[in-house]
Amino acid sequence: MAIEIEQQGGCVVGLSRIAVSDTHGEDSPYFAGWKAYDENPYDELTNPCGVIQMGLAENQVSFDLVEQYLEEKPSETTSGFRENALFQDYHGLLSFRKAMASFMEEIRGGRAKFNPERIVITAGATAANELLTFILADPGDALLVPTPYYPGFDRDLRWRTGVNIVPIHCTSSNNFEITPQSLHQAYDEARLKNIKVRGILITNPSNPLGATIKRKTLEQILDFATLKNIHLISDEIYSGSSFSPEEFVSVSEILEARNYKDSERVHIVYSLSKDLGLPGFRVGTIYSYNDKVVTTARRMSSFTLISSQTQQLLADMLSDKGFTEKYIRVNRERLRKRYRMIVDGLDKAGIKCLNGNAGLFCWMNLSTILDQQTKEKELELWELILHEVRVNISPGSSCHCSEPGWFRVCFANMSEQTLEVALSRIHDFMGRRKKIHN
Amino acid sequence: MAIEIEQQGGCVVGLSRIAVSDTHGEDSPYFAGWKAYDENPYDELTNPCGVIQMGLAENQVSFDLVEQYLEEKPSETTSGFRENALFQDYHGLLSFRKAMASFMEEIRGGRAKFNPERIVITAGATAANELLTFILADPGDALLVPTPYYPGFDRDLRWRTGVNIVPIHCTSSNNFEITPQSLHQAYDEARLKNIKVRGILITNPSNPLGATIKRKTLEQILDFATLKNIHLISDEIYSGSSFSPEEFVSVSEILEARNYKDSERVHIVYSLSKDLGLPGFRVGTIYSYNDKVVTTARRMSSFTLISSQTQQLLADMLSDKGFTEKYIRVNRERLRKRYRMIVDGLDKAGIKCLNGNAGLFCWMNLSTILDQQTKEKELELWELILHEVRVNISPGSSCHCSEPGWFRVCFANMSEQTLEVALSRIHDFMGRRKKIHN
Repeated sequence: MAIEIEQQGGCVVGLSRIAVSDTHGEDSPYFAGWKAYDENPYDELTNPCGVIQMGLAENQVSFDLVEQYLEEKPSETTSGFRENALFQDYHGLLSFRKAMASFMEEIRGGRAKFNPERIVITAGATAANELLTFILADPGDALLVPTPYYPGFDRDLRWRTGVNIVPIHCTSSNNFEITPQSLHQAYDEARLKNIKVRGILITNPSNPLGATIKRKTLEQILDFATLKNIHLISDEIYSGSSFSPEEFVSVSEILEARNYKDSERVHIVYSLSKDLGLPGFRVGTIYSYNDKVVTTARRMSSFTLISSQTQQLLADMLSDKGFTEKYIRVNRERLRKRYRMIVDGLDKAGIKCLNGNAGLFCWMNLSTILDQQTKEKELELWELILHEVRVNISPGSSCHCSEPGWFRVCFANMSEQTLEVALSRIHDFMGRRKKIHN
Repeated sequence: MAIEIEQQGGCVVGLSRIAVSDTHGEDSPYFAGWKAYDENPYDELTNPCGVIQMGLAENQVSFDLVEQYLEEKPSETTSGFRENALFQDYHGLLSFRKAMASFMEEIRGGRAKFNPERIVITAGATAANELLTFILADPGDALLVPTPYYPGFDRDLRWRTGVNIVPIHCTSSNNFEITPQSLHQAYDEARLKNIKVRGILITNPSNPLGATIKRKTLEQILDFATLKNIHLISDEIYSGSSFSPEEFVSVSEILEARNYKDSERVHIVYSLSKDLGLPGFRVGTIYSYNDKVVTTARRMSSFTLISSQTQQLLADMLSDKGFTEKYIRVNRERLRKRYRMIVDGLDKAGIKCLNGNAGLFCWMNLSTILDQQTKEKELELWELILHEVRVNISPGSSCHCSEPGWFRVCFANMSEQTLEVALSRIHDFMGRRKKIHN
């Protein structure tokens, strides 16, 4: 299909400012790398010299467990089909919301309770984050977001809402942890520019850091939100992907410990795309402690509901405790094993990573091999790795990292064999560099 | 769940203007009637005195055909499951887009061609209409929409976009047809208020009129859009529900006849919620003849994708020509039969309807029994019918009809038996009124 349009006489009909803006963020290297992969995808047998995709946070390591469940308990296609096909209530199926609430509790080791009545369904976390932004902030206002952050936030939080992201700058000096100082600094920076701050959005466990946020830090963030009377969105879509259940603390646990004081400013985003590896099913949720937000988000979810067919399948799957207990446990173990494999492999190549404990990626430090500590040199290195090593990773600058030389490397969207190939290529690359530089 | 929130000290954290506005439109009698039904739903056996829901444009008359298809061709739950579960490309499954394009062609009797590359997927037509509004108009701009129109447009086109609806006033004097005069009048009215008009949105076949738009009228609308250099959105979600395939003319046919001149301003919305009776599956599409709109809509569809599980099921179903040919034909026949049943029944009760030829509803004229020709009297009558006759219908004022006394009455979301009960209740009601007034 030709992208250019030619009108036969007259002027071309105009589009909106949103349509012609580039706030969708697809021009970022984050997405450019995907295209490079799409054009020449690695395959062990048919294209062994192709690009290995390590820029995609997808979880395939535990899919066999889902497949096993489906083989053992095939859902009857037609039973209840009519009822489900007609079900368009924006509350979502109660059975599905109950199963989701229970799954979220299980992931948190039962240390937090979730009320199915507070679960709002959305077609993925992408929609959930946008929807909350529409509800919490006006155009021109800002959300504070710690860096480095998921590149998609530039689109999700800003594109259609007109809201700004003001970065909370985190640095390697303290392992990219959020501090009260960095919170105040971001807030004051926004105020200086006359921008109204309406909330903070954290991702816990962090994407791209692959690390959970400590309890003390969470306490400080919530205290800060209370002090400034702003909202706190906690995106916890990797909560089931922390390697140990104890190492992840949800903001819901902090609220429970505080007897739900100040909870009306807190909203949790969850999804089954990462922990359960089902991004195609578009299953996201908002869990808000604020009744008005629940009501409004539910109305707004009319624009982004989940197929009732898919709700039904997942209601069945997630209410099977035998399945969920095993899945959560085995998935954590496998992710931890993968993480060790990649971090040890990189270590052997002379590359250090941030000490991670969660997620589908590690945060790799190549600042030591940058000629200069600049974004430009980082992107040069990224291009080199993409074209010479034929591995697509995500440069820290695409995540708005304040320091050059960091890269997010995904490890759960491929087989162990492919991961070995990638590590071996990186090892060779580092070896060649060493030779040249010695 | 308590709706009221009480904060323990301090002021309550604020929400956005969009969140606190009532542009969501749920306070309309259109939705209030649904609640009245929900509180006391009719059931032949268990609640024979309950409210009969005739305010819901749902198609259940041909569902047995879908069920029959599923019984004969049960999809294998696990085969291809992994691939689909991971599929999150916003292009949508090619097999699904091909099947949709082909289904849309079939509904139009092959008189128009659709290119699968121009199909953008959305979670229902609700999202499709909002998405197009985001792309075609800026906040404060307007779309012209002929009245009476679907009450949900007040939410879909306005709530989050900040766009206005300027009504094109249609009247019973010419069976609510759109005229060049009414188009110019609406446009001039907007310009007088200093509002920039960016497009026209028509629903063809019309909801709530239950009638198709004539070829000549479509030509005039497209000419007007060209004259003013604005967009034309044609919402054709009831295209497969016109009782005769020949009586529905799609804007795509006009474009084909014009050799696609000026096609870049035209965008078609379609969905499987009405014609196939699958609202729970959230399957909507945008078909745009404008390449830039296709690209932008596809990016924006990240917020509102269709479950890949559901895409797969429908790709299979809609590419089965044996099924689609029979479904389309039988569905048309059954809807026509239902329409005759309700219109004849109402006629016997002394009530006239607009001459319809499509859709899941008829447009009923009760202006003759209004004491005064006002919106207030119309709503009084609506309340009376809801509570005395226990039938929920939609008052014309909720559809922004310029004339009081018209009501939309849905007939496809119930059994023939229930429809008989409703007609009998209406007959009795009119009989009682006649007695009182004579």
